[in-house]
Amino acid sequence: MTDYRIFRSDDAMRFADKHSELFGDHSKLTATEFGDGNLNLVFRVANDKGTSLIVKQALPYARCVGESWPLSTDRARIEAEVLQLHARFCPKHTVEVLHFDRELSAILMEDLKQYEILRSALIKGKHFTHLASQMAQYLAHTLFYTSDFVLTGPAKKAAVAQFINPDLCLITEDLFFTDPYCNHERNNIHSLILPRARELWQDEELQAEVAALKADFLSKPQALLHGDVHSGSIFIDEQNCKVIDAEFGFYGPIGFDVGSLIGNLLINYVASPGLFTDQQHCVSQQQYLLTQIRDLWQHFAHTFSQLQQTETQDPTLQNSHYQQRFLQQVFADAIGYAGCELIRRTVGLAHVADLNKISDAKTRAACEIQAIEFGRTLILQRNNLTTIEQLISRLIK
Amino acid sequence: MTDYRIFRSDDAMRFADKHSELFGDHSKLTATEFGDGNLNLVFRVANDKGTSLIVKQALPYARCVGESWPLSTDRARIEAEVLQLHARFCPKHTVEVLHFDRELSAILMEDLKQYEILRSALIKGKHFTHLASQMAQYLAHTLFYTSDFVLTGPAKKAAVAQFINPDLCLITEDLFFTDPYCNHERNNIHSLILPRARELWQDEELQAEVAALKADFLSKPQALLHGDVHSGSIFIDEQNCKVIDAEFGFYGPIGFDVGSLIGNLLINYVASPGLFTDQQHCVSQQQYLLTQIRDLWQHFAHTFSQLQQTETQDPTLQNSHYQQRFLQQVFADAIGYAGCELIRRTVGLAHVADLNKISDAKTRAACEIQAIEFGRTLILQRNNLTTIEQLISRLIK
Repeated sequence: MTDYRIFRSDDAMRFADKHSELFGDHSKLTATEFGDGNLNLVFRVANDKGTSLIVKQALPYARCVGESWPLSTDRARIEAEVLQLHARFCPKHTVEVLHFDRELSAILMEDLKQYEILRSALIKGKHFTHLASQMAQYLAHTLFYTSDFVLTGPAKKAAVAQFINPDLCLITEDLFFTDPYCNHERNNIHSLILPRARELWQDEELQAEVAALKADFLSKPQALLHGDVHSGSIFIDEQNCKVIDAEFGFYGPIGFDVGSLIGNLLINYVASPGLFTDQQHCVSQQQYLLTQIRDLWQHFAHTFSQLQQTETQDPTLQNSHYQQRFLQQVFADAIGYAGCELIRRTVGLAHVADLNKISDAKTRAACEIQAIEFGRTLILQRNNLTTIEQLISRLIK
Repeated sequence: MTDYRIFRSDDAMRFADKHSELFGDHSKLTATEFGDGNLNLVFRVANDKGTSLIVKQALPYARCVGESWPLSTDRARIEAEVLQLHARFCPKHTVEVLHFDRELSAILMEDLKQYEILRSALIKGKHFTHLASQMAQYLAHTLFYTSDFVLTGPAKKAAVAQFINPDLCLITEDLFFTDPYCNHERNNIHSLILPRARELWQDEELQAEVAALKADFLSKPQALLHGDVHSGSIFIDEQNCKVIDAEFGFYGPIGFDVGSLIGNLLINYVASPGLFTDQQHCVSQQQYLLTQIRDLWQHFAHTFSQLQQTETQDPTLQNSHYQQRFLQQVFADAIGYAGCELIRRTVGLAHVADLNKISDAKTRAACEIQAIEFGRTLILQRNNLTTIEQLISRLIK
């Protein structure tokens, strides 16, 4: 990687100008870095007419998770190639990659500044009519078209090899599945919920289910996942939404992507009593979130099932009983991974603003305890709940 | 692959002499080719004292399955590397590779001429005391030590990529899971059993289960499989057995290797009434086979479970409830794949001598029907049978 250099503003400007026609000739460009700087540099390059693009560069080191953690800049290639492939199957909801330079580990992509980040919007209590249906469309199309239903054995194997992503997967393997269930130094646990966290470390029944979910994360390459579909990876407005940040992409269990999103909506649900002091506001927020979760699964299942019936190439996998059972298992997996997301965002290293924004410590602790209880229920009950309605009733009983 | 050339006897002799000290100086060597010549050349290179080695070379073309089918000579690398890795974990029961040359796609390995091939021996009614325990040892050790229980996430992913084997896997995907369940031109069906085969093509309940087994074959990389553990891949005598022919090796479901062997023992079981006209002989053969199947599973489960308890590296996967359930699922998978093996060896392209040797057409047809019935029962009942005793009772009810 001899030509690699860490971008400054002028490098980002030149990179954007060289690989896009968008700015035209004689444009006066500016570049502003606004990434968090731990993992990646993110520049907005703009001309004086307000036209802008994003340059994202992977740094060759990473203080990403609080300590030194080796991370290959190959993650930039993974991110670019996942986005490009997902855009082939769902261009409407995938951020557009204009250029990728492997030596520089730099991606030029469209600027989504007209959208806002879903997590920030939800925290403010904003609602979007099409969130569930659009994200269901994104998930169903990107996951179905990269699966065994469509790809031949050899094509699938080549794709699995192309998207082997050891460094980033290891972060999830550790932070999502291992740390929260033991007294790990990386954990980040509010003192008020420490007693509840300690119970998790003794909960062998729960740990057995988490082991099964981790084993599937390691060894169930069903489709090319985004790998990190949380509400901070989604840009949204009332008309559309677009998914960014695919550096965790790899071939894994379909339920992981679906469950990550459900888990993030549920995190906002449990945080709502802390975020919205007005009781009516809180109820309306929670009602919105449950509706989105229900619609997300129902739209996803409907779309995926339609694709199974009409687009499956492998003759063996055209069997309709098999297809229905496959989707039922995706549901169970998704619920399980949603449960893991609820727990790891509470006791694991990486927290989220939905809970962090709650200033009152006792209220926040109550919300976090609720997240753990929801998570535990989802993980343990995932094979007993067969419909999304049952799931919702089970949670709000 | 500029240096590749198809070996003649003198090439094989030079290759063996160059890469082994075994023959000593001034040896007069001979080489005899005794492979079937469709897929590989297999030479026995010997000196005048009777010392011998095997040279196996992958041919760059393959008329392997009755028609032109592209097969990369990379399968020789796969075979050599699988055997070398399996030998690290179970040297006693893995043929020893002395040298591998990638450009020539040629492997130098020990000669197992003091053993006989298990399939031929079983057809003659020979029994071996340690068959079950030794093969259980081989399967448990090779499969456990290449699994997520031992390997870190990154090491496992590198191993999966190393053993991606698209050409050979495709043969199994087609011949094992697809062809037998539809009217495929590759099928090889005796006219007397054609009506029963036609029922398979309408059997949607069975096809749904086969689809699930195929999906796992495609997307459940639990361990580095041998990939073709049939009774023609096992050399045996009263003291020991050794496994050869690992060119189908890849990361797949553990139950596939275990089930392939169980399926092959069951094929000899259903063939016994045709192979042994003496009733007493037939009963004793079948009794031997059932004992081997029972012991194989029990030894395998015991050994694998011990390894899980003492050698598991991943802390999450050390949970004992999870480990037990994992093994229970391996059992169900193994039974399912055994069922597939019974069916595909009867109606698919590649038949086996156990059934082909039966000269009386009606007797053979009755045995083949029995193989299909056994196979169907195993595939459909695999999740309801929880012990090997239940399986055996279910078959011989």
